Amino acid sequence: MEDDLRNTAKATTTYNMEAQANEERDPESNSLHQPLLKRNRTLSSTPLAMVGSKVSHIESLDYEINENDLFKHDWRSRSKVQVLQYIFLKWTVAFLVGLLTGIIATLINLAVENIAGYKLLAVVGYIEKERYLMGFIFLAGVNFFLTLIAAVLCVCFAPTAAGPGIPEIKAYLNGVDTPNMFGATTLIVKIVGSIGAVSAGLDLGKEGPLVHIGSCIASLLGQGGPDNYRIKWRWLRYFNNDRDRRDIITCGASSGVCAAFRAPVGGVLFALEEVATWWRSALLWRTFFSTAVVVVVLRAFMEYCKSGNCGLFGQGGLIMFDVSGVTVSYHVMDIIPIAVIGVIGGVLGSLYNHFLHKVLRLYNLINEKGKIYKLLLSLTVSLFTSACLYGLPFLARCRPCDSSLSESACPNTGRAGNFKQFNCPDGYYNDLATLLLTTNDDAVRNIFSTNTSSEFHVFSLTIFFVLYCILGLFTFGIAVPSGLFLPIILMGSAYGRMLGIAMGSYTNIDQGLYAVLGAASLMAGSMRMTVSLCVIFLELTNNLLLLPITMLVLLIAKTVGDCFNPSIYEIILDLKGLPFLEANPEPWMRNITVGELADVKAPVVTLNGVEKVGRIVDVLKNTTHNGFPIVDEGVTPPVRLATGVIELHGIILRAHLVLALQKKWFLQEKRRTEEWEVREKFTSVDLAEREGKIEEVAVTKDEMEMYIDLHSLTNRTPYTVMESMSVAKALVLFRQVGLRHMLIVPQYQAAGVSPVVGILTRQDLRAQNILTAFPHLEKSKGREKGN
Amino acid sequence: MEDDLRNTAKATTTYNMEAQANEERDPESNSLHQPLLKRNRTLSSTPLAMVGSKVSHIESLDYEINENDLFKHDWRSRSKVQVLQYIFLKWTVAFLVGLLTGIIATLINLAVENIAGYKLLAVVGYIEKERYLMGFIFLAGVNFFLTLIAAVLCVCFAPTAAGPGIPEIKAYLNGVDTPNMFGATTLIVKIVGSIGAVSAGLDLGKEGPLVHIGSCIASLLGQGGPDNYRIKWRWLRYFNNDRDRRDIITCGASSGVCAAFRAPVGGVLFALEEVATWWRSALLWRTFFSTAVVVVVLRAFMEYCKSGNCGLFGQGGLIMFDVSGVTVSYHVMDIIPIAVIGVIGGVLGSLYNHFLHKVLRLYNLINEKGKIYKLLLSLTVSLFTSACLYGLPFLARCRPCDSSLSESACPNTGRAGNFKQFNCPDGYYNDLATLLLTTNDDAVRNIFSTNTSSEFHVFSLTIFFVLYCILGLFTFGIAVPSGLFLPIILMGSAYGRMLGIAMGSYTNIDQGLYAVLGAASLMAGSMRMTVSLCVIFLELTNNLLLLPITMLVLLIAKTVGDCFNPSIYEIILDLKGLPFLEANPEPWMRNITVGELADVKAPVVTLNGVEKVGRIVDVLKNTTHNGFPIVDEGVTPPVRLATGVIELHGIILRAHLVLALQKKWFLQEKRRTEEWEVREKFTSVDLAEREGKIEEVAVTKDEMEMYIDLHSLTNRTPYTVMESMSVAKALVLFRQVGLRHMLIVPQYQAAGVSPVVGILTRQDLRAQNILTAFPHLEKSKGREKGN
Repeated sequence: MEDDLRNTAKATTTYNMEAQANEERDPESNSLHQPLLKRNRTLSSTPLAMVGSKVSHIESLDYEINENDLFKHDWRSRSKVQVLQYIFLKWTVAFLVGLLTGIIATLINLAVENIAGYKLLAVVGYIEKERYLMGFIFLAGVNFFLTLIAAVLCVCFAPTAAGPGIPEIKAYLNGVDTPNMFGATTLIVKIVGSIGAVSAGLDLGKEGPLVHIGSCIASLLGQGGPDNYRIKWRWLRYFNNDRDRRDIITCGASSGVCAAFRAPVGGVLFALEEVATWWRSALLWRTFFSTAVVVVVLRAFMEYCKSGNCGLFGQGGLIMFDVSGVTVSYHVMDIIPIAVIGVIGGVLGSLYNHFLHKVLRLYNLINEKGKIYKLLLSLTVSLFTSACLYGLPFLARCRPCDSSLSESACPNTGRAGNFKQFNCPDGYYNDLATLLLTTNDDAVRNIFSTNTSSEFHVFSLTIFFVLYCILGLFTFGIAVPSGLFLPIILMGSAYGRMLGIAMGSYTNIDQGLYAVLGAASLMAGSMRMTVSLCVIFLELTNNLLLLPITMLVLLIAKTVGDCFNPSIYEIILDLKGLPFLEANPEPWMRNITVGELADVKAPVVTLNGVEKVGRIVDVLKNTTHNGFPIVDEGVTPPVRLATGVIELHGIILRAHLVLALQKKWFLQEKRRTEEWEVREKFTSVDLAEREGKIEEVAVTKDEMEMYIDLHSLTNRTPYTVMESMSVAKALVLFRQVGLRHMLIVPQYQAAGVSPVVGILTRQDLRAQNILTAFPHLEKSKGREKGN
Repeated sequence: MEDDLRNTAKATTTYNMEAQANEERDPESNSLHQPLLKRNRTLSSTPLAMVGSKVSHIESLDYEINENDLFKHDWRSRSKVQVLQYIFLKWTVAFLVGLLTGIIATLINLAVENIAGYKLLAVVGYIEKERYLMGFIFLAGVNFFLTLIAAVLCVCFAPTAAGPGIPEIKAYLNGVDTPNMFGATTLIVKIVGSIGAVSAGLDLGKEGPLVHIGSCIASLLGQGGPDNYRIKWRWLRYFNNDRDRRDIITCGASSGVCAAFRAPVGGVLFALEEVATWWRSALLWRTFFSTAVVVVVLRAFMEYCKSGNCGLFGQGGLIMFDVSGVTVSYHVMDIIPIAVIGVIGGVLGSLYNHFLHKVLRLYNLINEKGKIYKLLLSLTVSLFTSACLYGLPFLARCRPCDSSLSESACPNTGRAGNFKQFNCPDGYYNDLATLLLTTNDDAVRNIFSTNTSSEFHVFSLTIFFVLYCILGLFTFGIAVPSGLFLPIILMGSAYGRMLGIAMGSYTNIDQGLYAVLGAASLMAGSMRMTVSLCVIFLELTNNLLLLPITMLVLLIAKTVGDCFNPSIYEIILDLKGLPFLEANPEPWMRNITVGELADVKAPVVTLNGVEKVGRIVDVLKNTTHNGFPIVDEGVTPPVRLATGVIELHGIILRAHLVLALQKKWFLQEKRRTEEWEVREKFTSVDLAEREGKIEEVAVTKDEMEMYIDLHSLTNRTPYTVMESMSVAKALVLFRQVGLRHMLIVPQYQAAGVSPVVGILTRQDLRAQNILTAFPHLEKSKGREKGN
């Protein structure tokens, strides 16, 4: 499937080589008799990408303000009250996003802790009675059933709910709209599926899904409900644009991270560093508000559960690896093990990225065979996981409890806590069972636990590490909602703790802190974040004295990891084929101009300001473009210019052309309309809709001969670049301002020259598409200009 | 002085009203016989601003990459090794910035603690002997002398070192280069002056100056030393551009904040939220590295001083109001006092901003009278401060020590610590002396101290609050290095603690925490930051459980403050007349196009690609423009176009024209040169210099008749906008991409039309300049569109 996609992309971006050969033979010999615009080669790229595990058409978002006459009138007619209403609403939505995300995170936690808790208690019961086989059958059966629910929901109802969702959110905020990503079905499947998958003991977390859930809530609130049952309140129309949706979804993403880790500042920074492409000071403030609400909700709920009203929840609860009680003292020599952890984290993180990439490609091959294969894959992973979690602890030897511990603490037969008894006699505990036969959250809490230096044997930790390396690679790609944070934390903490044991008495730092640092290093090595991870770990561990060493570990791990491959999210984005625009242009982009890019594209299709209906229908049916430049050839000669003048009036969107056809806004004669005529027919709410399809519009033969005045519907202020502009700088403009279409204007002034040379979209500016069309640039690709 | 500045600005931005009247009477009547470019009105604005307290010419920075032939060749010729070298150097500089900032912060702390410490010990000695007058004379004398040093240095050697420096850094990162802001003299004066002013017990902090110091270090490192003794190492030339300097200075600013508060994450976020205009993910990472280095340096130094090697330092030290020992428990009802603190903070913060604005205007009037007045003003403030600090504690009643405290703790006669004995008998302490007769850092530490609920009387706190309100207003504007953070913290903590006392037993929260929250609320109310303040307070107080309530207080205070006036930094920027570009365009900017702006500007001066030396000299001498569009009129007719073609080749900077004249790169005949000819004469290092002045260039009469081929020196890829573009969107482009010049190209294509309609600079896009030229836009100004 994925290879198919690649081939499609390649085929569509290859242009007529012959034409290029001609061009290269004699670049200067074009006589003046040739047409002025000799754009006869083609570089076009279909907007295809993997959505869930299907290839779909995806559309770009429009973060530019569409300054047409209607928008201007709408904006001018807004009273001060309406503007205040708009601001108030934005804050209300930010509040609701925080509130709902907090509540849903709470519910997920409650459900997971109770389902997994009662399951584990039952298994422990079987083991106490030494009915080991029955225990396994029960565990495997329940896990199988829970995985089945999650997988069936994902496969049949919302394929986009599988996986973490963070790459798609990242792409959305970059301007790529993945269809069905933020719908109500996706939200419900994600919630239920996440509960199922996490309770099933699979090696995945609820953190990534929570980010997606937050974004879904935000998107639904912003548009006033699910697609088919939207509340069309008048005031909601103000949110009906891509810019405001972008802001709200950013709030949702930070709320999600905050709910996952109870880290409000970390959530804001995560959105800033990893997820968002554009950032404004105002956004910083609003996301901060949302995360503050989430934290208050979580806190209120934990307060409530303390009194035991939440079933098994009180014993485990939200992840919060509190190590604030530990006095961290370290001296200069501790820099060495810290640097070692950083390097290991960087190397292992990039290895993990590398192998996960391979596994995901393999899984794509399996998944494309059909729904049943997807289900089978998920269930196989579930069975394998159950077998390992239950079987491996039998390999570990029983270890005697430390005499300093009370009898109720060790051995432990309850749900959470250290020193699990498992198959051991009284007074002994099984250290591997403490790590494996528990929920993932509890496993992290146990391996992070401080002042338990002799609890875990290196042998057990090695088994744990190897197991979670395997599970981490093979669990992520299955068709259930799955987060990447927790598997990475589990892997990282294992080698961190092993290193702590190896250091023995040479270090002052507690082994639990080594586990924390190991987890941080692997996160940085795989996800390549720094500041946000640092703050998340700070808020998780509640110990500020750890800050300097955490910073060091993260910096080293990221630097090492960056030497090998890109971050895991970039790898997934690339695998899915989402046209993500990178922040920095490639160095070779300075050697090519946008004019050269326009040369290899299909010629730009322009419309007249007052255009025949027939031609519009024709153009819409025969092209896939979403924007058309409007050019006036002396229809209304501008005052200060001679005749023979051509004016570039602006750019019109396909959706608005379709709308004009749907509303049958036709003129009998070729004339300019007045603004009030347009306003009678269209409202700015109409213009915000993008649903219309040209295939659904019926135009009679008579109507085909009529005219439409497009001026009022045209975005009069498109961003433009001169044809001599280098692609590097054009890309900076495109990305910084958040564009969908960028017009190329000629560098020359002369009679008869078209005022628009070409049109650039996101696809045209992507490095790999350009390299396909201009392979000689590849040679200089190696040279990177650092930032 | 400041009023003068305003008038100048007004005069220069007023354009020929008559011409406008003509235009408005008959906008459509221009006949075709008129010249095509009828730009005969003028809107020009002199680039004047207050630097220190002088009005100076300031220049814009160039964050755009100047893509001329030389740059391209230079870039292409860079080997992979050189690129790696460049990346390595960037990190080395970031490391050095952190290291040096950390060391200097350490030294300042050491000096302040020792000078102020021994001074206070001597005063306490006099008081113990009841020689009260002598004590006052000693205190006032030492303070007078210390203030004198700081003020003389600032007034005579580096006027730019007065004040906090943060507004100028903010402006620099926005693209406004204030002269002499980052020089070696400024750095030294700032360090010594800051030590003097803080030791003198003035109501100002070392936090703002530390930010400036960090930026100075960064700038000096980036350019290879002080202006006159720069190391011209070959590899340093890579940093010789505004973009890299901007990045390095951002590192410096965050290091400074980090050194001031020992808050590494807070430092990064402060730079992100308040200081920087552009931000990239790579920058996040590098500033984070710098602050990590600062923290390690500070930590190592504190470790060293623990053993008592640093004189009096060990007893006080870096601010770190550690309240981590306090268990924060609060319930829902505590929301009310928290909200009250937030509201008070917002109101008081905006009041503070309002009155500080008035005081600064008054001070400007005094300061412009001459250096001696500046000195007198500073010394008066110093004397007044000494009198209050020494005299007011006599108003407070002696309070008996709590019997639970040990005798060595209360009363206290040492340097730091609570419960100062002052004039009281044994067993009694003077609570006002605890707050006043100490360093500012210790005062903050004392008022933040927890579990001391009965220590301070409301009467003492009221005196303290009123005194610091007065001092806070009148100290800031004097000619010494002064930070705003500490005065605001002192004021805020006072009313916070008073509210805590008023709440009495109705609240669970400790009074020390109320003081912390009060300080946070006033900071947010005055400076209007949220996330960075929150993190700074988190790192200062070392208590994560405070996070949700701190967030709430900050959000409320900022919201309330924003209702009244802009943030204190914006007020200072505005007072200084620095042309800061705001992030969001004003709503009315949608109603005006850049074409209309160009109409009221002086006509654009273009040069030919191969231009006569005489004309270049003429243009440079008679205009003040810094950029000139290069237009080719059929010199080399482009292939695919008819004759009569005009080409817009790009834009050339004044500095490069001057350079070409200086190097006497003249041609006998009018011809295009080859690239190698240019490369023989110029290097890209030459192009990075901006020092040359046209007045210093001597051109003979013969040379005046020769030609220069400007093509190779021209930035071939300037950013352009169409004349129909709205100012709002043009401003977004200008600011997002970080431009200095933006060309306006015509919307029409016709023979004989100039390919460039006008040129826009930072000044043209500033709201107040536009409003001066188009007063009718003011009417719609009231309507704000929220973000």
